[in-house]
Amino acid sequence: MTFKFPLMAISLEVVMIVLFGLFVEYETPQNASQHNTSQQNASQQGNTSSSAEKDQFFQLYPLFQDVHVMIFVGFGFLMTFLKKYGFSGVGFNLFLAALGLQWGTIVQGLIHKLGQKFHFGIYNMINADFSTATVLISFGAVLGKTSPSQMLIMTILEIATFAGNEYLVTEIFKMASDTGASMTIHAFGAYFGLAVAGVLYRPGLRCKHPNEESVYHSDLFAMIGTLFLWIFWPSFNSAIADPGINQYRAIVNTYLSLAACVITAYALSSLVERRGRLDMVHIQNATLAGGVAVGTCADMEIPLYAAMTIGSIAGIISVLGYKFLSPLLANKLMIQDTCGVHNLHGLPGVLGGLASIVAVSWGKSTADCLILKIPVWNQPPDENCYDDSVSWKVPKIRELDNRFFQHVNHNHVEHEV
Amino acid sequence: MTFKFPLMAISLEVVMIVLFGLFVEYETPQNASQHNTSQQNASQQGNTSSSAEKDQFFQLYPLFQDVHVMIFVGFGFLMTFLKKYGFSGVGFNLFLAALGLQWGTIVQGLIHKLGQKFHFGIYNMINADFSTATVLISFGAVLGKTSPSQMLIMTILEIATFAGNEYLVTEIFKMASDTGASMTIHAFGAYFGLAVAGVLYRPGLRCKHPNEESVYHSDLFAMIGTLFLWIFWPSFNSAIADPGINQYRAIVNTYLSLAACVITAYALSSLVERRGRLDMVHIQNATLAGGVAVGTCADMEIPLYAAMTIGSIAGIISVLGYKFLSPLLANKLMIQDTCGVHNLHGLPGVLGGLASIVAVSWGKSTADCLILKIPVWNQPPDENCYDDSVSWKVPKIRELDNRFFQHVNHNHVEHEV
Amino acid sequence: MTFKFPLMAISLEVVMIVLFGLFVEYETPQNASQHNTSQQNASQQGNTSSSAEKDQFFQLYPLFQDVHVMIFVGFGFLMTFLKKYGFSGVGFNLFLAALGLQWGTIVQGLIHKLGQKFHFGIYNMINADFSTATVLISFGAVLGKTSPSQMLIMTILEIATFAGNEYLVTEIFKMASDTGASMTIHAFGAYFGLAVAGVLYRPGLRCKHPNEESVYHSDLFAMIGTLFLWIFWPSFNSAIADPGINQYRAIVNTYLSLAACVITAYALSSLVERRGRLDMVHIQNATLAGGVAVGTCADMEIPLYAAMTIGSIAGIISVLGYKFLSPLLANKLMIQDTCGVHNLHGLPGVLGGLASIVAVSWGKSTADCLILKIPVWNQPPDENCYDDSVSWKVPKIRELDNRFFQHVNHNHVEHEV
Repeated sequence: MTFKFPLMAISLEVVMIVLFGLFVEYETPQNASQHNTSQQNASQQGNTSSSAEKDQFFQLYPLFQDVHVMIFVGFGFLMTFLKKYGFSGVGFNLFLAALGLQWGTIVQGLIHKLGQKFHFGIYNMINADFSTATVLISFGAVLGKTSPSQMLIMTILEIATFAGNEYLVTEIFKMASDTGASMTIHAFGAYFGLAVAGVLYRPGLRCKHPNEESVYHSDLFAMIGTLFLWIFWPSFNSAIADPGINQYRAIVNTYLSLAACVITAYALSSLVERRGRLDMVHIQNATLAGGVAVGTCADMEIPLYAAMTIGSIAGIISVLGYKFLSPLLANKLMIQDTCGVHNLHGLPGVLGGLASIVAVSWGKSTADCLILKIPVWNQPPDENCYDDSVSWKVPKIRELDNRFFQHVNHNHVEHEV
Repeated sequence: MTFKFPLMAISLEVVMIVLFGLFVEYETPQNASQHNTSQQNASQQGNTSSSAEKDQFFQLYPLFQDVHVMIFVGFGFLMTFLKKYGFSGVGFNLFLAALGLQWGTIVQGLIHKLGQKFHFGIYNMINADFSTATVLISFGAVLGKTSPSQMLIMTILEIATFAGNEYLVTEIFKMASDTGASMTIHAFGAYFGLAVAGVLYRPGLRCKHPNEESVYHSDLFAMIGTLFLWIFWPSFNSAIADPGINQYRAIVNTYLSLAACVITAYALSSLVERRGRLDMVHIQNATLAGGVAVGTCADMEIPLYAAMTIGSIAGIISVLGYKFLSPLLANKLMIQDTCGVHNLHGLPGVLGGLASIVAVSWGKSTADCLILKIPVWNQPPDENCYDDSVSWKVPKIRELDNRFFQHVNHNHVEHEV
Repeated sequence: MTFKFPLMAISLEVVMIVLFGLFVEYETPQNASQHNTSQQNASQQGNTSSSAEKDQFFQLYPLFQDVHVMIFVGFGFLMTFLKKYGFSGVGFNLFLAALGLQWGTIVQGLIHKLGQKFHFGIYNMINADFSTATVLISFGAVLGKTSPSQMLIMTILEIATFAGNEYLVTEIFKMASDTGASMTIHAFGAYFGLAVAGVLYRPGLRCKHPNEESVYHSDLFAMIGTLFLWIFWPSFNSAIADPGINQYRAIVNTYLSLAACVITAYALSSLVERRGRLDMVHIQNATLAGGVAVGTCADMEIPLYAAMTIGSIAGIISVLGYKFLSPLLANKLMIQDTCGVHNLHGLPGVLGGLASIVAVSWGKSTADCLILKIPVWNQPPDENCYDDSVSWKVPKIRELDNRFFQHVNHNHVEHEV
């Protein structure tokens, strides 16, 4: 592999530079006036300018940066959870995203401008990050099982497919707006990734691979990713919404859906695990399902409590998916989904598609069961204080680790005495 | 505990959804015109709208996101410093904050609107994060000693108390503005937490618990929290200040107070530790005391050097608190304050209250002692290069760790030979 | 050293407070009208106000916060890569930056206002962070080999030199704009640091010091720094550009240069390492060289593909520097550059200076070699799945670590049986 990957990468970068040279230009007041400025969502890929557009650039730049943090820090660190695959998780994420955003800019621009030159503005940058997200979701499904060259090919193919699909949905079929892109990004990325994982199925990995587990600190690194994804998801779902009231609604609905999702994800995780302990895999992933699921209808005028309901259901479905569906996928359908992207992006993405219909007809029929039971509070005994294992499943290696240090400690004390 | 926590959590989420259904609405131009728009700080919980309000939403959204990062990444990772309680630190922080912001929205909205429906805008989101901060501060005091169900109850009670207290202070007594909330958030959260820690006092934890210590990398995780809190604190103290000059002053005063606080916190830490080494506990916490202490008077027209003076004093007081007061609290007053929130939020919060009076009468009497001594620079000897322990107290386990690896190294080399 | 460092730090803080008391004032509409508002880039240190200036403050505040994250989280965590020097890396970074921004404000303000009082606005805050960046770059060169007191002196001297240099370049010689400061910040900081490293040369460190290496998780901590630097670099290069089209160009050119740089840095890293594996040192550093190199011409009207070309070349040069030049510097020129700042800031900074000339005369002659080879994709064998060492150089200690755990595991299983 010594020369294959570097040559592919450098060749691709040369191609990108050439394509940018041929097709991409600055957004300037001059070139702006030569075109009709089309305000609709669908043509964001295209050509929007004038000096008002310059203001728009700086208005949206903070939201773009939020999305950018999600793509590089969020997805990147979320994929560092494996004990021996952290460099690859965060490192290939950076590589694929940096490649994907160049390629996404080109493909999306060319499709929407029908092969003509186009101007490079804030919507191009946001949409490039979005196209990159599909690749990173799919990357999660095949994490640990592919070579850099394979990922590189996947990036090129998937982003082209995504751009074509997105063009069909918004421009040709004029279908339902999908602001937060539950379907076009999350479900698309998840099922694309699952398809690849299915194609690359390896009987040799049927029994759990010894490397396919976390250690204590790798799980904490993954939480960096989770938290930045969680915090900035309202920006993700609202960045390309129509300015004003729609963008406002996309923000608050996503915010509330995510908050509700955390509560149900924790509850379900505790419910399905032995002795009521929480599973870090659920916390790292299922707490985000609310952001995926509310995406499609985020900017619609659904009642606020509907957004919370969608988030609550997403949290429940996602944890159940991790617990019961993933083993089934692996054993019956021969699909090994390393990060469980089906449970984070696939199911909640489909839920988001359905929710845009259901949410409207949803009644106010949920006002029941308000009686709170008064529990005895389960205070941990003294000897278990400051120890995660009371409430959390902890990787075996960490426990070993500690038994070990006591062991070494004794030995060394003896040595030193 | 298998069913208690999940049932409580799900029931609470159902209650939240019902309450949002009954009381919370979108902010729209339509509903905006039905109400008087009250501009004062105190009524930010209420109903502010019109299309100008939509602009305000997007103007404040970046500041809200800064605060959001502080709540989830800042507080979350700050509490990962214990060697075996990192999952709980960052994980329960996420759970409590997600619950707290829903409950905070409801309680604060209902109190300020006297039980009527209210509209959900950017001030509600910022204030919800603020109410959550009180809980997370208190959480720090009882870290490692409470069950999830106990924390859940604490969240509900504390936020209700906070909202009532804040209403009394601003609406009934019309008391001094407390923009950065030194008193209403930080001192309140700290003393509430200390009260809970006092109630939950355990004689069994009197001798230092073996789990109550950090390891090398857990201290680095905590620094992620420290840095994001430090960076975004100017946004925290200015987010709900009056727009314009007051907001500007709140930003620059907090910025300067924090910068000054870092210098004195490092100096004092080095001064009180043996051989002049720095203590990571001080660095992680006392460097933030300047943000707490300057809060109350951040938006007042105090001279810039006064903000720096407040920060300098806060850094000194906080380190001294960690060194001398915390052991006293634990031994004499039977209050075991795990994170030392009294030194980070309690004392500096009270200092902030006092400072709003003192700062005004403060003279320009500090212009002395400008003579810099020329020291010999203490260059470390070669064998200590690249080693923290020259300048820092390092957890014993890390040291062990290394002795161990050398040990194993030798053994393995032998094995392999 | 017990008293030297604390006394120096506290004395310096007292001096800062006095200087702020004597020379620095709020920016207010009142004091604004007493001065001519000078709009040019060069006088940003000075006095810009009026209520329009208040708007500018809040427009630039998000960009300032991006830069702030780079300084404290970006540089801070980038310097945690050494296995036993992480506390110092991130901790001294915080101390030096907090001191540097106070001192930078004073020195830059006094120079530009010729010793008169000046007003403290958003440009002062951004430029203070910039002056701090030079110190942190130099800190990287001497990482692990200096005492806190030495660093403190370096901070004071270097920022004074930087401010003088910057004043000469922009005010006296009216030389080329250097928006992103390839030369005045990055090359300056790097060569200043190299000079210090040369002065402090130690024959005793000629053979590689046992502490001068990373462990698995310290490399992941460093990636936190890399990613935040990478994401927010467009804000760094555009923060003080002329508002409007120039600022827009600075953002998109930096963004594209960085994306291209990642691709070539990965390619070259794989090319120069044995068996095509990637080196984390290259990934952590060389991926950022594109941001340095494009700095000087970022806001010029260079074609977009030129920005990408600059980034591509920077990535290549930087990796080659790490591989071939750093050992040469250490052995022949007696300069031990711990972080390799010469390869990240020095070379790309000089490249940036050259690029501002070259970019203009650059033709469109790069449109060739579009033929993509169809490679066999190098799928890893089953037993290597989920293991970084297929594609990455992994610190020896991590590998040991795992061998060890298996070892302990066996022992303990025996013990328990």
